[in-house]
Amino acid sequence: MASEKPVVTVTCTAPVNIAVIKYWGKRDEDLILPINSSLSVTLHQDQLKTTTTAVISKDFTEDQIWLNGQKVDVGQPRIQACLREIRRLARKRRSADDKDPLPLSLSYKVHIASVNNFPTAAGLASSAAGYACLAFTLAQVYGVESDLSEVARRGSGSACRSLYGGFVEWQMGERADGKDSIARQVAPELHWPELRVLILVVNSEKKLISSTVGMQTSMETSPLLKFRAEALVPAHMAEMTHYIKERDFQGFGQLTMKESNQCHATCLDTFPPISYLNDISRRIIQLVHRFNTHYGETKVAYTFDAGPNAVIFTLDDTVAEFVAVVMHSFPLESNGDKFLKGLPVRPAPLSDKLKAALSMDPTPGGIKYIIATQVGPGPQILDDPHAHLLGPDGLPKPTA
Amino acid sequence: MASEKPVVTVTCTAPVNIAVIKYWGKRDEDLILPINSSLSVTLHQDQLKTTTTAVISKDFTEDQIWLNGQKVDVGQPRIQACLREIRRLARKRRSADDKDPLPLSLSYKVHIASVNNFPTAAGLASSAAGYACLAFTLAQVYGVESDLSEVARRGSGSACRSLYGGFVEWQMGERADGKDSIARQVAPELHWPELRVLILVVNSEKKLISSTVGMQTSMETSPLLKFRAEALVPAHMAEMTHYIKERDFQGFGQLTMKESNQCHATCLDTFPPISYLNDISRRIIQLVHRFNTHYGETKVAYTFDAGPNAVIFTLDDTVAEFVAVVMHSFPLESNGDKFLKGLPVRPAPLSDKLKAALSMDPTPGGIKYIIATQVGPGPQILDDPHAHLLGPDGLPKPTA
Repeated sequence: MASEKPVVTVTCTAPVNIAVIKYWGKRDEDLILPINSSLSVTLHQDQLKTTTTAVISKDFTEDQIWLNGQKVDVGQPRIQACLREIRRLARKRRSADDKDPLPLSLSYKVHIASVNNFPTAAGLASSAAGYACLAFTLAQVYGVESDLSEVARRGSGSACRSLYGGFVEWQMGERADGKDSIARQVAPELHWPELRVLILVVNSEKKLISSTVGMQTSMETSPLLKFRAEALVPAHMAEMTHYIKERDFQGFGQLTMKESNQCHATCLDTFPPISYLNDISRRIIQLVHRFNTHYGETKVAYTFDAGPNAVIFTLDDTVAEFVAVVMHSFPLESNGDKFLKGLPVRPAPLSDKLKAALSMDPTPGGIKYIIATQVGPGPQILDDPHAHLLGPDGLPKPTA
Repeated sequence: MASEKPVVTVTCTAPVNIAVIKYWGKRDEDLILPINSSLSVTLHQDQLKTTTTAVISKDFTEDQIWLNGQKVDVGQPRIQACLREIRRLARKRRSADDKDPLPLSLSYKVHIASVNNFPTAAGLASSAAGYACLAFTLAQVYGVESDLSEVARRGSGSACRSLYGGFVEWQMGERADGKDSIARQVAPELHWPELRVLILVVNSEKKLISSTVGMQTSMETSPLLKFRAEALVPAHMAEMTHYIKERDFQGFGQLTMKESNQCHATCLDTFPPISYLNDISRRIIQLVHRFNTHYGETKVAYTFDAGPNAVIFTLDDTVAEFVAVVMHSFPLESNGDKFLKGLPVRPAPLSDKLKAALSMDPTPGGIKYIIATQVGPGPQILDDPHAHLLGPDGLPKPTA
């Protein structure tokens, strides 16, 4: 942070997060305030991350932004909300400190470039990582040190949960202005080292309703959604926090599955109904339950967001066998794609007893690939200048 | 009814009913008492019916029963409950009347044969028609004239709704003994002559969870189910009754779809989750909503029970076009099967504008066939002796 330099360049990365207590429905569309608290697991950036570079310079004449190499309209309301909010916080902080007068840098225009290291085809909500990275990077260039929940949240609600590593809750808050609707860490990155995450990327051509539109329709039409948010989620939050602190996979896994099912139930109760799960998703659900029934305990758990992809939670000692189960049930159709990405997973044999217990006809090509990952840290600052996505001229570097 | 003849033979038919306010969950498993009232439309027996013959004779040494030509165990608890209940009613009625002493016939054993005129492949709940027909036929041979709701209900809850034609409600009742959990007609068969019903039989190999087991699991695990039954269904019952009395298809259709979606939402909220809908079901749902959106009004409505088949409600002036829409979206794979069964439906052209509005890639073979039918009457007594399924010897007639 050197706010009076003519040019300041900062590059940061931020993680994807997967909710185990689901956020579905806003009580304030503009401020992006949720109707219930939610809780998520931050995924490791070795597998999934957004990288963002922000440059401020007195020579820039306008704010500009590039996403995955494409120039996009910086005038988008949510991007504008983030920029407005971070500059407000910067101004506030400085004016609170007499010895440090308002720096010129606050009037500087900013150039921003952001890229994801994972294919959008993966259907993973990239907006959370994207807006968390935007908020975090802007905070560095403008020298903001206060809580960034609101900055990230104004871009995408669940983005505030990507501001921390480990296990993170987004407290819904009660205030109309949303000042108390903030994210905080429930447990750090290394709290539960055995926990593993498998992302099963499902083949699907169907174009889906965006979660923003879906939530609005659910809020307007689903009586089950309101009941869930008010009567059921508060207890779920307390239970889930307890299971995480105790590293109780039985409780964690079962509540994670029930939460996912209940959230998708409110989507089905929406009018017209919303179905993010498809037949492959349902086969994965069946597979998980049969696998757990075979062992007489919850060794694997699924959760689904606004799409058919499954996110599987399990412990390190179960990863290899469950991956073998998935490959047995969804044999790879050679699509030139690497089926297993991320953390290395050793091959494991499947007992005939287990195969019989699964009793499913294989569905070739039902799953495109698997990403194996784990719990990870929050946003990072990259010191290596080579990491910058923008040159000193504030323009995207030619990607060789 | 000639209870002192050495042999009495009676043959009756009973209809299938389709719930528009759903029954899901029992408050008493043994008496089969529901957690909420439900409301159904009785389908016409020209297309779908059960036929049952009952013979009583002093010469029979034991009760016997044949279903669709197969001898089955008469000791089944639900069959026994029906027999016990009908004989209790017969005894009660006679003992209440001095001039008519207990007839011998009450001690006679009964032979019963029952057949459906529709393939079980159709996945239509045949138990409702079956137990309604059993209750109604036994009432004839034993001379019972009182309300048969309990007799039918003890066989299969929704069977009590098949005891009447037209539009029928099953009042949940409040008494622990279930005496006030009875069916009654809301509107007669000819009340809404324009109403039509299309059953879209979906291709599906998946074996499904029986509704009995499904309901039990939902009762044990779904908080949304209890909320729906207590807080939402009572209002739905009143609204639906109003829409039917007013012949308001907009209201009737929309509430029918919302009820179906909400019932299946509680199945998804069950743990492990239950999914009766598959991708074809969901495409039908999408098709219906796009069709209605195109016309800016609810011209067609869907409802689903414990399987992927869709039951479509519409009015006579829309049948031809919507059937054309279905055949356009699910082109027939020649399976040697007649695609369109039941009421005649004339071919109708589809405007390019409508085809564009549907904007769906065809799914060949997704639907096996369509049964076109309408609202129908309640159980009937067949006077023609040739209709009897059992001979005077009380054994199934050789089916030529």
